[in-house]
Amino acid sequence: MTAAGKSLRPHAKTHKSPEMARRQLARGAVGICCAKLGEAEVFAASGITDIRLPYPLNPANADRVVKLLDHTRLSFIVDDADVAQGWSTAMRSAGREVDVLVKVDVGFHRCGIDPDRNGAAEMIARVAGLPGLRFRGLLSHAGHAYNAGSEQEIAAIAASEAETLTRLACEVERLGVAVPEKSVGATPSARFSLGQAGVTEMRPGNYIYFDRTQVGLGAATWEDCALTVLARVVSRPAPDRLILDCGSKTLSNDLARSYGPTPGHGVVFTALDTTTPEDALAIERLSEEHATVRIGGAGSGLAPGDLVRVLPNHSCVVSNLVDAAWLVDGHRVLEPLPIAARGRIA
Amino acid sequence: MTAAGKSLRPHAKTHKSPEMARRQLARGAVGICCAKLGEAEVFAASGITDIRLPYPLNPANADRVVKLLDHTRLSFIVDDADVAQGWSTAMRSAGREVDVLVKVDVGFHRCGIDPDRNGAAEMIARVAGLPGLRFRGLLSHAGHAYNAGSEQEIAAIAASEAETLTRLACEVERLGVAVPEKSVGATPSARFSLGQAGVTEMRPGNYIYFDRTQVGLGAATWEDCALTVLARVVSRPAPDRLILDCGSKTLSNDLARSYGPTPGHGVVFTALDTTTPEDALAIERLSEEHATVRIGGAGSGLAPGDLVRVLPNHSCVVSNLVDAAWLVDGHRVLEPLPIAARGRIA
Repeated sequence: MTAAGKSLRPHAKTHKSPEMARRQLARGAVGICCAKLGEAEVFAASGITDIRLPYPLNPANADRVVKLLDHTRLSFIVDDADVAQGWSTAMRSAGREVDVLVKVDVGFHRCGIDPDRNGAAEMIARVAGLPGLRFRGLLSHAGHAYNAGSEQEIAAIAASEAETLTRLACEVERLGVAVPEKSVGATPSARFSLGQAGVTEMRPGNYIYFDRTQVGLGAATWEDCALTVLARVVSRPAPDRLILDCGSKTLSNDLARSYGPTPGHGVVFTALDTTTPEDALAIERLSEEHATVRIGGAGSGLAPGDLVRVLPNHSCVVSNLVDAAWLVDGHRVLEPLPIAARGRIA
Repeated sequence: MTAAGKSLRPHAKTHKSPEMARRQLARGAVGICCAKLGEAEVFAASGITDIRLPYPLNPANADRVVKLLDHTRLSFIVDDADVAQGWSTAMRSAGREVDVLVKVDVGFHRCGIDPDRNGAAEMIARVAGLPGLRFRGLLSHAGHAYNAGSEQEIAAIAASEAETLTRLACEVERLGVAVPEKSVGATPSARFSLGQAGVTEMRPGNYIYFDRTQVGLGAATWEDCALTVLARVVSRPAPDRLILDCGSKTLSNDLARSYGPTPGHGVVFTALDTTTPEDALAIERLSEEHATVRIGGAGSGLAPGDLVRVLPNHSCVVSNLVDAAWLVDGHRVLEPLPIAARGRIA
C-alpha cells in the first residue's frame, strides 16, 4: 500500500527476476504483474502467491491457467464478450473460478473496450455475471503517456484515465455489480495517478530501473537510473568516430519516445560516473554487435580497450536480452541477478 | 567452396546454433564466423574447428583467445596499429600465434581502416610483420548495401568493394607481403560478389533464414524465407484493429531497411501459407508483448484465438530472443532447434 492509500502491484516484465519481485513484496507491494503465462509460471514456481496478467489471455491456454491456480492467486483481463464466455466455459469444466478484470481503452488504442461505446457498462455487467469468473474490476494502461509532449500532457492523461474508470465503474455499479478495483499502470503517469481519488491500484514496471525514455518524460533523473550496459571501445577508426561492443542485440533498437523522438540509441557515460552524460558522444547507429558513436563537441580521448557505460533508451527490453544482470554498489560488484523469467514464448 | 570458386564461411550470428553450423559445413562451408568470443566458445565446444571473428577483438580478452586456440583454428580482424601491437605482445607472452585479417572500410563507415588513407598499405604490412600474428589478408563488410535504393546500387557496391580490396592487396603485395584472402560478407550483396574475380571468401549470415528486409532488397522471395513467428490473435477491440501476442520482445523493433524505410513491424501471413502476405493487415505498432495490427483493404475475419504467422523484418535479432526455434516441414513439426550460443555477453 502506498502512502496515498493505493495498492502497488509492480509489473515484473521489466526485471523478470523473482529476486527483485521478493524485494518489491518485502517493501509493501500487494503482488506482481506478469506479461504472459510463461513468466507467471516462473514467478509462481519461485513462491510468488499473487500474480496479475494485464493481458488478454486466450482460453486456448486454459490448462496452464488451471495449473497455475494451484500455486498462486491469478487474475487477468478480458476485453471481448466471446473470450469471456470461453473462459467461463473452460473454468466451469475445470471446476474452478478465476479473477478477471475488464480492460478499458483510455486512449492508447491497443486492447480494451471503448468506454464510450453504447452498452459498455452492460457488457461489463454480463462478464461479471459469468459463472467461473470472479469479477474484480476495471484495468487500464495509459501507454499514450509515452508520446506526450509535456509534463502537463502526462498529468492530463492520468486525470482523464482516472475519470474514465471512475465514471464507467459508477455506471456498472448502478447495474448492481460491485467494482472493487480500478487499476492503472504506466511509469510516466504514475506520479500523477497517485493523486487520483478513484484509482485503487498502480502497476508501474519500468520504475525499478528507469531509463533514458523516463528521464526524457520527467519521471526520473540520471541518478535514478539503475540499469546500464558496460561496454568496451573496440575501434577508433576516425577522429570523429568510435565503436562500442554493444549493438542492437544488447541495447535493442528501441528509440527514446520522450517528448518527441530523441535521436540516439542510448546515452554514454564514463565507466564509473553515471550522473553526467558524455555530451560529445552520440550513438548514431547500431549493428547487431557494434554501436557506431559520433564524436562531436569537445572530442573524446577514448581509445580501444577503454570501458564506458551506456544508459539504454528502454531498460525492459535490454534486461530481456541477457540471462543475468549484475548487481553493483558504486564500484563494487555484488552478485549476479538471474533473469529467470526471460525467454518464455507465450 | 562455391561453384564460383570462392570459399563460403557463413556467419553464425543469425542462427547461433551448432546444429545449423554442422549442416552448413556438411554442405561445403570452409568454417563459420561468430560475432563475439562468447559465441565462438559455444561453437568450439560443439566441435567446430575453424572459426573467424570478423570483429575487432581487444587484447583485454587475450586469455580467452589463447584458450580457444586449443580447440579451434581462430582468426579475427584488426583495424588499429596499437591494438595489433597489443595482440602481438599478448600472443608472444603466451607463446602462441593467431590468424588476423585487416578490416577495410569499403563505405559502411563502421570499423576498418580507410583504404584511401596515405600509408594504408604500409600499416597493413607492419601488422603482417608483427610476431605472434599470422597475417591472412583483408576483410570487409558492405553494410551500406542495406541502405541501397536499387538492385543496381547493390551491384555497384559489390563491385566497388571487390575493386577496393584487390587494389589494396596489390599495394600490400608490392611491399613484399602475401595477401592470401580477400573476404567479403553481406547477404544482400552476396549474389553480386560471386562474380567478382578478386574475392576469395564470402561470409553471408542472414541467408540461412532470410527475412522481410532481404525480400525488399531482392535477395530473396517470400518462399525463400524460413523463419516465421507463430502468433495468436488475442484481441479484436475494433473493426479495424486486432492485437497479436508478439511484440518487441519477440519481433524486435528493427525496421525493414529495404530500398528506403518500409513501414510495419513484419508481414502477416495465415498460419499455414507463407507465400502470400495478408495485404489487409499492417503491424503498425509494437508494445513489448503486443502487436497492434491495422486492418484495411478487404478487411479480415480473424478473431481472438486464431493463429497467424509473422515474417519478421530482421531474422537475426528474432532468433536471438528465444532459447529455441522449432524446425517444421510444411505443416509437420519436426524438432526443437536449440539456439545454444544466444545470451553470451561479449
